[in-house]
Order: sequence, then C-alpha cells, then structure tokens
Amino acid sequence: MVHYPNGRKHAPVVEKNQKKQVEFGKRGMSFEESINESNAYYLTRGMAVLHKKPTPIQIVKVDYPHRSRAKITEAYFRHASTTDYNGVYKGLYLDFEAKETKNKSSFPFSNFHIHQIQHMEQVIKQNGIAFVLLYFSTLNRIFYLPSLPLIQAFYEKERKSIPLSFVEENGFEIQEGIAPRIPFLQIIDRLIEEKEHGN
Amino acid sequence: MVHYPNGRKHAPVVEKNQKKQVEFGKRGMSFEESINESNAYYLTRGMAVLHKKPTPIQIVKVDYPHRSRAKITEAYFRHASTTDYNGVYKGLYLDFEAKETKNKSSFPFSNFHIHQIQHMEQVIKQNGIAFVLLYFSTLNRIFYLPSLPLIQAFYEKERKSIPLSFVEENGFEIQEGIAPRIPFLQIIDRLIEEKEHGN
Repeated sequence: MVHYPNGRKHAPVVEKNQKKQVEFGKRGMSFEESINESNAYYLTRGMAVLHKKPTPIQIVKVDYPHRSRAKITEAYFRHASTTDYNGVYKGLYLDFEAKETKNKSSFPFSNFHIHQIQHMEQVIKQNGIAFVLLYFSTLNRIFYLPSLPLIQAFYEKERKSIPLSFVEENGFEIQEGIAPRIPFLQIIDRLIEEKEHGN
Repeated sequence: MVHYPNGRKHAPVVEKNQKKQVEFGKRGMSFEESINESNAYYLTRGMAVLHKKPTPIQIVKVDYPHRSRAKITEAYFRHASTTDYNGVYKGLYLDFEAKETKNKSSFPFSNFHIHQIQHMEQVIKQNGIAFVLLYFSTLNRIFYLPSLPLIQAFYEKERKSIPLSFVEENGFEIQEGIAPRIPFLQIIDRLIEEKEHGN
C-alpha cells in the first residue's frame, strides 16, 4: 500500500480537483456563488434585478405523504434551453451565462450548448444585451465577453475553444471587488457610454 | 349503488372540476399552456424572446446509478421568488405572471405571493415592464393588468381580492386569437404608442 505525504491512504488528487472547481479565487466561494452574491448586492441596492433561473428538472414521480408537503421521488436534470441569468438594468434587458475553466490558454466550447448560443442570438435580435462571464480559475482572471464575438467564434467550424487572446481582444477583464465581488455592471455602463458617444 | 346518467358508477363531479381547471376556453389547453404556446409563436417568428422559468425545486438526494444519468430521489417544490415569465421584446424587458380563477366577480389575492409583488416593484424601478395576465375561466375573459394598479391594490389592507370592475378599469381585455392564442404583445404595442404620443 502506498502512503502519501499527507498521511492518507488515498491520493488527494480528486479532492484537490474538486476543491479547485468549487473555489473562486481565495474566497472559499464558487464562481457561480460569487455571481449570485453580486446579483444580490445589486438587487438590495435597487441597482438591477438579475436572477439565476432554477435548474430545469423533469419530474417523473411525486408522492403526497399524509399531512406533509408533496415529495418528488423521481426526477432528472434537463439541459437548459436558455442562459442561466437574466433580468433588467436601467430598462435594459440583460441575459448572461457564467462559465469557468481550469485551462490556461483557452476556453473550451464544450462548456456551451448550442441552445444557449441560439438563445443569445435571439436576444441580440430583440436588442437585448447578451454576454458571458468567463472565469479562468487557474489564472484567476474574469472576463466579460459580449455574445456577438462568442457566437461568431462558436460557428467557426474548426474551433473547439476560444483562445485566451481572443477573449482578451474581444472582451473586458473584470477586476474582483469586495462588494460586489464581480462588478460586471461597470462593463455595461462603459458599453452604454460608448454607444451614446457613438464609439 | 347509484348509477349516474353517464352510465358510470361514480359521480363525475371531480372529473368535471378537474377539467375546468385545466381547460382554457374550449381549446383543450390550459391557460398556462396557451401562454407558453403564444411565447413559442412569438419566438419562432423572431418577435420576442419570452420563456417560462423552470419550477424551483429543492434537491435533497441524488443517486448516480451505474452507467446512467443522475437520478433525483428526494426533492421538494419551492415557492418562486420571482414571476414565472420574463424576456425581451423590442429591447424592452418584460416580466409577467399568468393566473386564473373560477370566480366571476373578483380575482383573489391568494393567487399571489408577496415575493412576486415585491419582484414586480423592483422591476418597475428598473424601468422594466411588469404585468399579469388574468384569466377568469368561468367568464372566459382574459385581461392584461399592469403591475402598478395590481401592487397598489395588493397593499390596500382590507382587500382580499381584485374586483372584476377594477380589472376592467385598470387593465386591457385581450381577445383570444388563433395564432398566437393570447396576443398580449398587442397591449405592449399600444402602451408604447401611447407613451410615445404622450398620453
């Protein structure tokens, strides 16, 4: 039997990986949790109304135990047909997805479903603002990438991922904050300002 | 044993009531299904991107059977903290709830949760368009009621329901159509036009 330096009988690899997946930076919070917290910050201050949609579940069986609430006893996860987040900011419709990768040089398209890409296309056509928040966890860098370059890159057949350089060129890096942790509305403000000034 | 006119051994009462609950008009479709169908109509024609949010579920136990997908074996329904529907139409953020009653003279507030009312207040503050689609199933009448009068009526302490006359005065009746079945975007168009012309 092999003993590992930490005194355990099993290699700590899996545990480590799991930890990396759920921790955002050094804050002991996942990237998604940090987005949710930022949305809650914006909501309580009356700055924006943004919510994560519930996970779509296909319910197969429900029990109604005597005198207690309905209990779902068989159900399955379904793929979302839209993005996870949407809402309203200064009268604008915002629609986005938050994704993370451990990769250092590119963001794999396997993180996106075709339905989500199509949904973003539909949103743009209705003059909504669609984007993704990308987190490169190993690099600890967060980007706001507008959906237009994302969609274009997605449909380029040979591409299986978005190079970091592409994200840097077409997106906006977001500096982590204290409150909110991921101040992505700053990017929207900047885009509105640029539009108003005809840039 | 009592035999009923329809030749069955059981009274058809329950079945009748159930039928009333799930049928929208004479179309064999529930009110909610008709809204979903209308949204699908608007979506496929590139007119609007409106979706019903998934039902929020609290997941307690998940099994991972060998070689098959994750199976949820214990879960419970949760109250929604927002409205059921939202999306974008001509750059505008729309947010709404669809409710029905069998009552003939008023719409009971028991159909609304305080969270939904608060959510609509937040949406209005962000210049989003919030409303409810009310279906009086016995009368077979559908109304678009803007959230502002709804919210005001909700906070009037003595009121336990919205009188039909209030809905008629403050809302807009929607005539059922073929495609879409519930053409509620017509009301939005009318409101936009009135706003543009300063009415």
